[in-house]
Amino acid sequence: MTRPRILSGMRPTGPLHLGHLTGALDNWRRLQDSYECFFVVVDWHALTSEYANPSDIRQNVLEVTIDWLAAGLDPARSTFFLQSLVPEHAELHLLLSMITPVSWLERVPSYKEQQQEIQDRDLATYGFLGYPLLQSADIMIYKANAVPVGEDQAPHVELTREVVRRFNNFYGRVFPEPQTLLTETPRIPGTDGRKMSKSYGNAVYFKDPPEVVREKIKPMVTDPARKRRIDPGTPEICPVFALHRAFSSVETQAWAAEGCRTAGIGCLDCKGRLIDHLLHRLEEIHERRPRYASRPDDVWDILREGSRRAREAARATMEEVRAAMKIRYPVA
Amino acid sequence: MTRPRILSGMRPTGPLHLGHLTGALDNWRRLQDSYECFFVVVDWHALTSEYANPSDIRQNVLEVTIDWLAAGLDPARSTFFLQSLVPEHAELHLLLSMITPVSWLERVPSYKEQQQEIQDRDLATYGFLGYPLLQSADIMIYKANAVPVGEDQAPHVELTREVVRRFNNFYGRVFPEPQTLLTETPRIPGTDGRKMSKSYGNAVYFKDPPEVVREKIKPMVTDPARKRRIDPGTPEICPVFALHRAFSSVETQAWAAEGCRTAGIGCLDCKGRLIDHLLHRLEEIHERRPRYASRPDDVWDILREGSRRAREAARATMEEVRAAMKIRYPVA
Repeated sequence: MTRPRILSGMRPTGPLHLGHLTGALDNWRRLQDSYECFFVVVDWHALTSEYANPSDIRQNVLEVTIDWLAAGLDPARSTFFLQSLVPEHAELHLLLSMITPVSWLERVPSYKEQQQEIQDRDLATYGFLGYPLLQSADIMIYKANAVPVGEDQAPHVELTREVVRRFNNFYGRVFPEPQTLLTETPRIPGTDGRKMSKSYGNAVYFKDPPEVVREKIKPMVTDPARKRRIDPGTPEICPVFALHRAFSSVETQAWAAEGCRTAGIGCLDCKGRLIDHLLHRLEEIHERRPRYASRPDDVWDILREGSRRAREAARATMEEVRAAMKIRYPVA
Repeated sequence: MTRPRILSGMRPTGPLHLGHLTGALDNWRRLQDSYECFFVVVDWHALTSEYANPSDIRQNVLEVTIDWLAAGLDPARSTFFLQSLVPEHAELHLLLSMITPVSWLERVPSYKEQQQEIQDRDLATYGFLGYPLLQSADIMIYKANAVPVGEDQAPHVELTREVVRRFNNFYGRVFPEPQTLLTETPRIPGTDGRKMSKSYGNAVYFKDPPEVVREKIKPMVTDPARKRRIDPGTPEICPVFALHRAFSSVETQAWAAEGCRTAGIGCLDCKGRLIDHLLHRLEEIHERRPRYASRPDDVWDILREGSRRAREAARATMEEVRAAMKIRYPVA
């Protein structure tokens, strides 16, 4: 019995932070027990937004992989790999492009949303229009049975399912329809109360040592109604309480909520306990991370070996794809 | 001193006919003397229109290559290859897609033209929109200095020049700007007077033996004003005369024009001489073709060996491209 296969990935656009832990990595780590997992660093996807200035991609590939290892993903059980080291993804993407209507890509919600949101760079490129189809190729080339995603990425898996159906319909059944494994992704606010994000400069990173975590959380934005220590607050609208919900024990959550509403505790007390829980949660990460960060060659080795394994699987699929599409030739 | 390099190609959508001879192959054969030539059978491009029914592509790859050999292209001097055997084309296409505005592709004249012309299949695909950029990748990956094209393909070379400038501007000078070698392409009518084309069923193929050439030309459409033998005609509007212009001697052209205008000759006389000249012109092709047609394994060998050579060049370029785009990694 082979385990069902999962494909998931991240763009190498910066070091990972608390949002990645609750949004993906905690889930990925659990999935390793029941699925054959392929985890891919998608450097080509990073180019869709970073094409004008790609010089950080290489370092970010390393950082992301180190952060995965620090978060407890296990390269002995799962396949870590780098997208561009499996160039077959580009070939499948091209072949899928032949059967994919432009309109399917134009109506992916992220297409128009991101073009509106991101004003400082030109995203009206052919590559940006096609990146959800590149994701489809990423998934399909491993015949993934399921894809763990947050709600915002669910339309991309839906597109993949449509492309799979169209391919199988034209050329015979080669690909399974991947299931969407919807991950609960609690909203993780950054230190300024907005969504935690590298681009907002409000993130707590895996690589931040304990003293930096403390320094970032202490001045963190809270419920603005608690101007003074004696003013009661509303935990539900407080970013600090949102972090308690994600990282603290149920007891501490109850203590913080009660103390806030009754003005029984001050915000600094509340943040102090949050810091304790955060540092406890980050303990293993802080312990593991330097082991890998100090040996980048070993990390590249992990990516190389994983990419070799991934490429074997990808090549086998491409043989099938070429045969199904009648473009296999007697030239071996 | 290395000779400047040329890239040109054809889609494997059917056997070649007289239109290919005057429109491309006569020119390609001459170019072999002064250029290092790469001639590519572009099977991926064929998929942009044949994706729903690709089962003829494989046989057509063979036919086109046999027709090239029959037309006197020389695989000892030039590199014959098959696009999909050099998958690096897909990788470069993907990387170029990151820097290419969708609007550049939407304004390529053939995009809207072909969508309007070709009604029996859906061309509103992502792959069809991007095929001129795939051509750019085909050209750029060999650092071609020039591309021989007819007027209708000139906008594609112009697009390639724009993409080259944008790439070099972002990442440093990797690619030369390919020059357009505009080929005079006399209009070659088919037997029904429309442009000679496989899809009109009006073509004279290289593979047609002399008796078939005769049978196709004899009932060919002529100037409709010459209803009877004694009616004078207008050679300039006669499809048969257009073929005389392309394939007959100057003397025969003068004889045909004079005889037509004065009703001194009949259309069958005129066609008879045309057949003589055509068969003379096709003599070498008819002689060479069966030698290759009877040994398909040798033809596949030529494509395999050429694709191996092409791939070496393509791989070297891709190393440079990855380095320039900062996505080369220490994982050799």
